[in-house]
Amino acid sequence: MANMKTTLSSESKSIDIDSSGPLTMIGEKINPTGRKRLVAALKEGSLDYVVDLAIRQVDDGADVLDINVGVPGIDEVKAMRDVIRAVASAVDIPLCIDSPNHESIAAGLEASPGRALVNSVNGEESSLSVILPLVKQYDAAVIGLTLDEGGVPETAHARFEVARKIIDRADSYGIPLENIVIDPLVLTVGADSSAARVTLETIALLTAEYGVNINLGASNVSFGLPDRPVINKAFLAMAMQAGASCAITDVTTMTATIRAADLLRGRDPSGTRYIKHFRATGPDNGK
Amino acid sequence: MANMKTTLSSESKSIDIDSSGPLTMIGEKINPTGRKRLVAALKEGSLDYVVDLAIRQVDDGADVLDINVGVPGIDEVKAMRDVIRAVASAVDIPLCIDSPNHESIAAGLEASPGRALVNSVNGEESSLSVILPLVKQYDAAVIGLTLDEGGVPETAHARFEVARKIIDRADSYGIPLENIVIDPLVLTVGADSSAARVTLETIALLTAEYGVNINLGASNVSFGLPDRPVINKAFLAMAMQAGASCAITDVTTMTATIRAADLLRGRDPSGTRYIKHFRATGPDNGK
Repeated sequence: MANMKTTLSSESKSIDIDSSGPLTMIGEKINPTGRKRLVAALKEGSLDYVVDLAIRQVDDGADVLDINVGVPGIDEVKAMRDVIRAVASAVDIPLCIDSPNHESIAAGLEASPGRALVNSVNGEESSLSVILPLVKQYDAAVIGLTLDEGGVPETAHARFEVARKIIDRADSYGIPLENIVIDPLVLTVGADSSAARVTLETIALLTAEYGVNINLGASNVSFGLPDRPVINKAFLAMAMQAGASCAITDVTTMTATIRAADLLRGRDPSGTRYIKHFRATGPDNGK
Repeated sequence: MANMKTTLSSESKSIDIDSSGPLTMIGEKINPTGRKRLVAALKEGSLDYVVDLAIRQVDDGADVLDINVGVPGIDEVKAMRDVIRAVASAVDIPLCIDSPNHESIAAGLEASPGRALVNSVNGEESSLSVILPLVKQYDAAVIGLTLDEGGVPETAHARFEVARKIIDRADSYGIPLENIVIDPLVLTVGADSSAARVTLETIALLTAEYGVNINLGASNVSFGLPDRPVINKAFLAMAMQAGASCAITDVTTMTATIRAADLLRGRDPSGTRYIKHFRATGPDNGK
């Protein structure tokens, strides 16, 4: 399988999500869900705290930053534009524009200085027909979620078919496979003990058929269960073994496991990245 | 792929190493390498400490106990017999007879009350021709290491071929595939960054071709590197994703990750085993 590279860029730097390389880490913290201080900052239009979250995640090893400004009652289009500009002035890494609202995505793409990653399109007609033209117009890359009008399919084969639909439709807009990153979604194993297995199987199917880059949001999997970090870390290592090339994750807590798994996948010659992270942070100690 | 069950037994209990079930944990601590107190106990012929190590590992979740009494200068055959008898009187789980010496293995098999696991045979003629007849004679199961006269092969395909040789030879002695557990060996990634990748590929090849049970000794992989637990845990999760069904491991430190990975593989309906372990031990915290 040839390696697949999804190239993203900031003002002056480009990075590749690389199906044969180390995992690309997308910092998840600029997202108001469950973050009261960020909600308050976004309501006030105060950007200092957002910029602080950006800088800290870059210091902790983020390769890309997810930007989600979805707070009820604010002007999300304006907030997205303002936050993208502020973050892009403060840190020089690519951004991931995260919104269910296509106008916010358009504003984020307009404000991004380089090639951004759109989070996300899915297999619903209303999403495909609106998001993919924007992705094409701005020559962006896009995360494709394996869900459609019927929700998140229960089987790996059905999720694979949703991914195929997204890939085929993107192709019809002239968006090449290398600009697509499929997220096979993971639900919580606390509600359904086959939830992670189905996701891991979907990754394996997509990797075998398309070699396409694969993203995961890796913390839902443990929702409702005790000792969540041990589950999240095991899941990320297993997903990397199955073929994941990208994750939206808490870079503060997950980097040690990610560096270890890349070393074990043979994607960190001489263990340089693993040892560098250890020297910067000390032992992981399950934090 | 049908599931493969390697049945082991103690005086009154049997367990299956099951290619479709949760990982079978073989407690590694009755092994004098690096354990001064055990060396002293074995030299003195004092069995209390050995029995204590056995009981503690069973309490921590071991399904099987590895028994290695290799201390220079002692009568290993007598020590193996004595330790097997003492441990089998104290705990009611199957044993894994671990020695490079066939006379010790024979003594261990003779002393074992149930069906033991022999650790190990390898692809060398001198090993195959001596160990396999003992395995057949005692109707035991055996771990086959993928090394031969040329050492440990560098590629996954070459390790697979050594496993094939062991499986074929065992067949010629009338030992069925379900009584064989292949250990594809893992060297340290500190010395060679492809070391773990080759092992993971070997697991995948063996799982696809034979569906045979796979064992790993999962702590060598991190030798010489800092923050070893994070590497060992990631490796075990990745190996379980690739198809490992059994590991010789430190059950005190690794059980949380193993229970999490089994939950994620869909092999712990309702998370019963994961939650039971959490309730017994509290959070993992990278210990």
